[in-house]
Amino acid sequence: MPIPGIIITPYMTVHLLTIGDEILIGQIVDTNSAWMSRALLLQGFIVSGKSSVGDTREGIVAGIEHAMASADIVIMTGGLGPTKDDITKKTLAELFGSGMSFHQETFDRITAFFARIGRETPPAMRDQATLPDQAELLPNKMGQAPGMWFERDGKVVISLPGVPFEMEYLMTHEVLPRLKARFPGQPVAHRTLATAGEGESNIARRIEAFEDALPPHIKLAYLPSLGQVRLRLTGVWEGAVELNAAERLSAELDAKKSELEALIPDLVYGYEEETLQQALGKILLAQGKQLGTAESCTGGYVAHLITTVPGASAYFPGTVVTYSYEMKTKLLGVKPDTLTQYGAVSEETVREMALGALDTLGVDVSIAISGIAGPDGGTPDKPVGTVWMAVSDGQRTITARHFFGRDRLKNIQLTGSYALNMARRFLLGQI
Amino acid sequence: MPIPGIIITPYMTVHLLTIGDEILIGQIVDTNSAWMSRALLLQGFIVSGKSSVGDTREGIVAGIEHAMASADIVIMTGGLGPTKDDITKKTLAELFGSGMSFHQETFDRITAFFARIGRETPPAMRDQATLPDQAELLPNKMGQAPGMWFERDGKVVISLPGVPFEMEYLMTHEVLPRLKARFPGQPVAHRTLATAGEGESNIARRIEAFEDALPPHIKLAYLPSLGQVRLRLTGVWEGAVELNAAERLSAELDAKKSELEALIPDLVYGYEEETLQQALGKILLAQGKQLGTAESCTGGYVAHLITTVPGASAYFPGTVVTYSYEMKTKLLGVKPDTLTQYGAVSEETVREMALGALDTLGVDVSIAISGIAGPDGGTPDKPVGTVWMAVSDGQRTITARHFFGRDRLKNIQLTGSYALNMARRFLLGQI
Repeated sequence: MPIPGIIITPYMTVHLLTIGDEILIGQIVDTNSAWMSRALLLQGFIVSGKSSVGDTREGIVAGIEHAMASADIVIMTGGLGPTKDDITKKTLAELFGSGMSFHQETFDRITAFFARIGRETPPAMRDQATLPDQAELLPNKMGQAPGMWFERDGKVVISLPGVPFEMEYLMTHEVLPRLKARFPGQPVAHRTLATAGEGESNIARRIEAFEDALPPHIKLAYLPSLGQVRLRLTGVWEGAVELNAAERLSAELDAKKSELEALIPDLVYGYEEETLQQALGKILLAQGKQLGTAESCTGGYVAHLITTVPGASAYFPGTVVTYSYEMKTKLLGVKPDTLTQYGAVSEETVREMALGALDTLGVDVSIAISGIAGPDGGTPDKPVGTVWMAVSDGQRTITARHFFGRDRLKNIQLTGSYALNMARRFLLGQI
Repeated sequence: MPIPGIIITPYMTVHLLTIGDEILIGQIVDTNSAWMSRALLLQGFIVSGKSSVGDTREGIVAGIEHAMASADIVIMTGGLGPTKDDITKKTLAELFGSGMSFHQETFDRITAFFARIGRETPPAMRDQATLPDQAELLPNKMGQAPGMWFERDGKVVISLPGVPFEMEYLMTHEVLPRLKARFPGQPVAHRTLATAGEGESNIARRIEAFEDALPPHIKLAYLPSLGQVRLRLTGVWEGAVELNAAERLSAELDAKKSELEALIPDLVYGYEEETLQQALGKILLAQGKQLGTAESCTGGYVAHLITTVPGASAYFPGTVVTYSYEMKTKLLGVKPDTLTQYGAVSEETVREMALGALDTLGVDVSIAISGIAGPDGGTPDKPVGTVWMAVSDGQRTITARHFFGRDRLKNIQLTGSYALNMARRFLLGQI
């Protein structure tokens, strides 16, 4: 079953081609492609494939030919820049039957750039400004190498530098506006629900009837991450584009989004790109409450998540990470008897940790966590992956036990997701 | 210009093929490919290309055909899992002329997994255990979908789940050992130095003469990450494979590694895959010392890094995250006057935080951090990205100020790397 969400339309397809050995040897992770895919999709261009080749003439020729055979538009990144743009530019010139010429305007921009940073223009920059005649140049205000736009047999091939902020600048200011003008397409709209607390297959069961009843021009995608699943509805306008097509499609998606949310209100924590820690922060701000954490096995990871949100200081004064028995007693007031009798990974201990954190951190609500992250340290009745967590406001203390897996980092991350969601639901009175 | 470090040899080439709309629509960044490229290269297999297709039958068929035409080995990831493995498995069965059968052993493993977490096996799991006959199955201890190994026309096609830790498990325990047995090649050896504290270009300047003098069969690759750079030497045996070729190559690389390390002894913190937090943990264990952290802008991230290391409890009792002025005073004894006079982001404050942490956490050595993570909150004399840190053992307190950038998460991560390295050098008496 394809993930619902792919759009099968007669629209323009894009193939993303990255040039460069640094991608093939795993030296860098390609984050450009994901950014470009999202930016293109939001404008109704569908990335139908991606590929990477090394920076040799043969690699680039094979890459471009394969890309042109499989999509209407090819966007290449990489292979441009002072130390390596020779091969890419010459290969492009050859493929598009073009000569190479010195381009004064580009050279002037490069010279101005070096003047601004108080340096002389290096001699190699004359080569940077020597470009294929047949290319329409896309001025790059963020760097030296301009983007290039070629056309052949009704297909468009665009070459961009691989430096992320140069690529993003050129995509936003040059490529996307030109593509939209060159290929006016159908309106496309998206709505995303962010959920936590259930796995993909359990959600699928609960929304099966909704999913089956979706009209063909609206697709649903499941986008899972640790402890969370995003549900994204994508609608594509069908038929002739009427004047108010975008608005009508938008309204239709809003209705479907509400319908979907009504099926799983207990799971939805936010919309679009919102994170669980942002959703929690919003609730704390709205309720005027302070939250703190008392962490053992997560070792500060939950506090880290909370403080990735700008402005978290408004509702988060701090955390105590108590890895040892002694710190649990000293900083959180956990009774030595409790630790001896029930162990550090127990309902009794997390309960006392949560209550102690209210006092130590002077907060309204606390999250306490103690577990066995692994890979070692499990016992028959408390296997690796056992995690106890508690949320308390002093009046009510809710506890939960989870059994995760054997992978230390994954256990820490899953615990983080579950703990934030538990606090969120506690504050909303859902638990 | 191809980057140094890539190996151009007549060896087996690998094409990485990712299946899944989630990559094409840019919902997830493909980190698997970089990991796989590195792991394969370490065993002497060269990734010659990468591509991504959507999870439709047509996409998968075109993707596999293109991949098989361009390399000896194809490794696919993604397109397996409870809601979407149908098409991938059926398409593979079709391409390799295979039927589909229920596989009891796989089903039993899935059932055992659900039993362990105290849940009933969902009915959909019978489909998960229905697999192509012609596939050699690669048992997946980390998840439900097994890996599959197909052969046709002397080429190998391997299909793996896309979940990173499942893929990594299967690559390490099944795929790489089988590939090495199936395609014994030229001896290849690697030595990696892990460094912290200097950027790529400054390191390059210091080791320029060494790099220029390397023989052609030994390459040096720079593998940078936030605040750190790994330097990897890769040697490939040239000519006929003699009986002791691997040992001789190994000895040659050991010599080069020592030569390189002698040029930058102040930067090297470890070897191969060792992390800074592991290196720090080893030193603490060896010196029998306890370490704690007092964190403001990093919000627990440094403690999280330290506790990603299994067994960290032997030297790490805990942390206090003091985001507010009040907590800095209450939990760490920072004088209110110091905060008022110098501000939370100051040498005076981190110094008091470090000393307070020694006492509060009962540790031998402490790390204290306070900074402006951003994106807001900067002032003309303390711009966003300003971070003060201190390391103290009560006798000596060393402080340092850094100016990072405007990106909140990047600032937190860079601070983590610098702080761990500072503590490491402090413990070794290097600062």
